[in-house]
Amino acid sequence: MTYCLGIILREGLVMASDSRSNASLDDVNVCQKMHTIVDPGERVFILLTSGNLSCSQSILTLLRRDFDQGKGLAAASSMYDAARIVGQQVRSVADMDQPDLNKHNFRFNVHLLVAGQIRGQPHDLYHINPQGNPLRATEDAPFLQIGESKYGRPILDWGVRYASSSLEDAARYALISLDSTMRSNVAVGPPLDLLVYARDELRITRQRRFSAQDPDFLAIQTRWEQSLRKAVQELPRVRFDEPGTRS
Amino acid sequence: MTYCLGIILREGLVMASDSRSNASLDDVNVCQKMHTIVDPGERVFILLTSGNLSCSQSILTLLRRDFDQGKGLAAASSMYDAARIVGQQVRSVADMDQPDLNKHNFRFNVHLLVAGQIRGQPHDLYHINPQGNPLRATEDAPFLQIGESKYGRPILDWGVRYASSSLEDAARYALISLDSTMRSNVAVGPPLDLLVYARDELRITRQRRFSAQDPDFLAIQTRWEQSLRKAVQELPRVRFDEPGTRS
Repeated sequence: MTYCLGIILREGLVMASDSRSNASLDDVNVCQKMHTIVDPGERVFILLTSGNLSCSQSILTLLRRDFDQGKGLAAASSMYDAARIVGQQVRSVADMDQPDLNKHNFRFNVHLLVAGQIRGQPHDLYHINPQGNPLRATEDAPFLQIGESKYGRPILDWGVRYASSSLEDAARYALISLDSTMRSNVAVGPPLDLLVYARDELRITRQRRFSAQDPDFLAIQTRWEQSLRKAVQELPRVRFDEPGTRS
Repeated sequence: MTYCLGIILREGLVMASDSRSNASLDDVNVCQKMHTIVDPGERVFILLTSGNLSCSQSILTLLRRDFDQGKGLAAASSMYDAARIVGQQVRSVADMDQPDLNKHNFRFNVHLLVAGQIRGQPHDLYHINPQGNPLRATEDAPFLQIGESKYGRPILDWGVRYASSSLEDAARYALISLDSTMRSNVAVGPPLDLLVYARDELRITRQRRFSAQDPDFLAIQTRWEQSLRKAVQELPRVRFDEPGTRS
């Protein structure tokens, strides 16, 4: 399992991912799911992956090989084109591997989040599904999730707003969203990767890896639980129906 | 879909449920999923149901018929026995209906939460699965959920504690948990039913139905969002790795 999320705000992008890979319960590994492809000052791409690790590795290897040769993402003229290029690479790897996966009753189940910016173009965030077609995050729905998405969603629904959330706050929401998920699904686990990209930066300046015992992460968890309890205690009292008004 | 939850605390029980029934997206109804069977001063049972509505109705009808005749739940000498009696009724209805459901590729998928107290015995909370066997809530895991459980779980993990949570706070957590779920899954919907039972009360005194536009519920939602944003803004700042310390 995996949990990755991307948030797009007027100010920029926040990307976060767990690092647990499990072929089964007794085959658990650490595996980075956040990948960056950067030409500083020109273009920045952040890719998060979920699903079959072998297939997502192939997709990234081939994307990076093309990039290094000045092709593919190196030549994309917009984030839409970049999303299409990633989608096409998903389809190429599906063509290579899907028939044999299916023979053994495995599914080709790779999902990617692709975010970034190309100089002179707006920053953007897309979800590429296993069929290769891109879904764009919108101002009304400014975050996208792949993998185990349900536990970590309410905190984003409550708090993240395209126009008014700061990158700083969105980074905190992302960490709480990951924390919510890790507590309930052991197939999602640390270390956590967090990346904050400010619009027009065109390079990666703020990235952080949190281990399970990272004191900063523990401080955020502890403070969050305290604040949350206080917030709940300060909610209006629940009043009840008068006895006899219900059957 | 459905979302029901039960919380057990040293002080008592909090039970909550949505009321949406949908055979499909274009066949949505309101259907109460919280049922009480009470002999005031002697015994109180609260049952929440999810899954095939026809089957859960049969289970409740037959449980209530037995109860009215002084049998079944009326004669149970402990909450464990009560949970077994409900489980036996689940199995009886499965025997009646499962073969024909299966013929049409439907599953017998009824889950129940059963909570309450019998005079002289401790209050308790069980989950009865479609196979009829009972799972008891524990002090370490003091809540049980049926139906769409993931969205509403983190808030309970963060806040609900068997020994230290008050009934009043647990009722607020339950409403927030339901609110989290309704926002993300339209198959979970209002009105919401909430019931608070204090240990040794042996009757139902605090019950409330909230419509979508209930001003008390809207006040809780609004205040919650405000408090949550403030709590997030007050979290420690996220610090980033020094550039060059990561590949």
